[in-house]
Amino acid sequence: MTDMLPTGSTIGILGGGQLGRMLAVAASRLGLKTHVYEPAANPPAGQVCDALTTAPYEDEAALRAFAGSVDVVTYEFENIPTSALDVIEALRPIRPGREALRVSQDRLTEKDYLSELGLKTAPYADITDLASLESALERFGTPAILKTRRFGYDGKGQVRISDPSEAAEALAELNGAPAVLEGFVDFTAEISIIGARALDGAVACFDPGENVHSAGILRTTTVPASVPASLRTDAILLAARILNALDYVGVMGVELFVTPQGPIVNEIAPRVHNSGHWTQNGCAVDQFEQHIRAVAGWPLGDGQRHADVVMENLIGDDMDRVPELAARPGAALHLYGKAETREGRKMGHVNLVKPKG
Amino acid sequence: MTDMLPTGSTIGILGGGQLGRMLAVAASRLGLKTHVYEPAANPPAGQVCDALTTAPYEDEAALRAFAGSVDVVTYEFENIPTSALDVIEALRPIRPGREALRVSQDRLTEKDYLSELGLKTAPYADITDLASLESALERFGTPAILKTRRFGYDGKGQVRISDPSEAAEALAELNGAPAVLEGFVDFTAEISIIGARALDGAVACFDPGENVHSAGILRTTTVPASVPASLRTDAILLAARILNALDYVGVMGVELFVTPQGPIVNEIAPRVHNSGHWTQNGCAVDQFEQHIRAVAGWPLGDGQRHADVVMENLIGDDMDRVPELAARPGAALHLYGKAETREGRKMGHVNLVKPKG
Repeated sequence: MTDMLPTGSTIGILGGGQLGRMLAVAASRLGLKTHVYEPAANPPAGQVCDALTTAPYEDEAALRAFAGSVDVVTYEFENIPTSALDVIEALRPIRPGREALRVSQDRLTEKDYLSELGLKTAPYADITDLASLESALERFGTPAILKTRRFGYDGKGQVRISDPSEAAEALAELNGAPAVLEGFVDFTAEISIIGARALDGAVACFDPGENVHSAGILRTTTVPASVPASLRTDAILLAARILNALDYVGVMGVELFVTPQGPIVNEIAPRVHNSGHWTQNGCAVDQFEQHIRAVAGWPLGDGQRHADVVMENLIGDDMDRVPELAARPGAALHLYGKAETREGRKMGHVNLVKPKG
Repeated sequence: MTDMLPTGSTIGILGGGQLGRMLAVAASRLGLKTHVYEPAANPPAGQVCDALTTAPYEDEAALRAFAGSVDVVTYEFENIPTSALDVIEALRPIRPGREALRVSQDRLTEKDYLSELGLKTAPYADITDLASLESALERFGTPAILKTRRFGYDGKGQVRISDPSEAAEALAELNGAPAVLEGFVDFTAEISIIGARALDGAVACFDPGENVHSAGILRTTTVPASVPASLRTDAILLAARILNALDYVGVMGVELFVTPQGPIVNEIAPRVHNSGHWTQNGCAVDQFEQHIRAVAGWPLGDGQRHADVVMENLIGDDMDRVPELAARPGAALHLYGKAETREGRKMGHVNLVKPKG
């Protein structure tokens, strides 16, 4: 690996939330330093990184100073303003690259891209007005979900439509933001593939995890997933197809619906993903280190799993359970150092670990 | 646990080497901040802690400011000047407590203490001059090892005596430092117990690891150790006796020689220990987090192991092997971020992980 950044190099991370925090910790295991860029004060990642810049994404001087101080730049979230990426890219490589961001920042673009790759998605339609929404509802039936094209996460920017008569109201709720309608998929399980692609094109995937959501937020991921071996292979090949098509460098989260007709892609995230947190206690190289390895030009871990894990998110008042969880055998806590507990806010997670069954 | 420090609290760590670095990372998993105090510039722990003080242990103002900024103080090494501890202890609790430091800072005091607890040690004698050395050599025979009472680590401050005629030369090599002579122990294996004791007195031990040394430096620790189950129980009871006697709070490393007559205590360390690094990939709660939990008044992890591990230290030029090790399946790298590679310097370690056999 001639492009392997030597130990002592610095990884720039855009975004200082919990994903940035765990990326910084993973980088430290490889002897790499981290410089985090985050507009908000006192971010979770600020407690464990080597350097922190607190500045808005519109501050070109700060962006230039940040880029100049690091060897490569990555990010913990996909909604980084294009203008900031332009400033950085003139100075340092951004990994994963711009194409992955372009595709995943917009639900419509993403679904078009996946369809063109020959992958199955839920039925979807570009919604520009009430007429296009009513037409799509007629084709897909109800229930269906209306989602903003951009800036959605953890169930935000989504409205469920149970009856065609709710169309106008649903549209109003999104305040005129560009949207897509997604038809209902009758799935038996939702799984995630956390895939990674190295600078030299090598691909490695972790075992699929089985996800349970509640109110649009991930609650648990269980590994091994209760899916047949053939589906596991299909899912990994599918993830590899996306990674290769994008000439991707880094970790990607791919959410799949399992249906009798095969896997359907729900969405992709060009970053480490909540449904991959189980790897911290189940694999020699976890998703955070895998991402840093890819970004730094290191060889990937092979993704093999040495233990069974149930990952549970700790959201809002779940923090009250920390004393009990801390005392539970086999429970590995990962708290994010957020000062304020708020309803619906991800405060940490716990990996319940067992020897591999 | 009414004395449980809440998330967001700050742990003060004396010493910024690799142990301090891994303690800081472990604290972050519990949502705790760390403030590291270290006289040397750019210490490994400085890259991952929330705050760093660079000042000598003689700087009382810096010590006071440090203590005032944290909730509790711990340390990564036992040879902290007493005067510094006095300044800190007036402001904040120090865990593990002063008695553990008093006992373990001096090999003679330590051996006396262990003997009084009814534990077996190698034959030893206080050496004050050539006459006392010659007398002890006559009693113990050769080979024997002359060690300074204080400040020894990784084989430093030790001279092996193969023949009584070497006595004067060995004594000269230690430059008149107070010393102990240790008689030879014919052991079949060397194992470590990493034990922990919580603020409420609860004790938990990790599985014993089997150590291989070379030139006085630990090379590998293998878990499970190839020792009978009865010895495992004996070793854990022995560690618990020391922890309880010292009213200890934190993690302690206990090195044992396995002999046909039972386990013999080689030495104790009142801190996380190199032979416990395997726990990072074999247990839900590793030794670093276990130590932080104890120090912060949290419940301990139970020490259960979910995978088999061989830990190998990366010393000096072993860093050249990093590209190969990074690509090896099941290899978890832990590099310390030290800028300069030197012969005999611990630069990192690798945990080779397998599903539990």
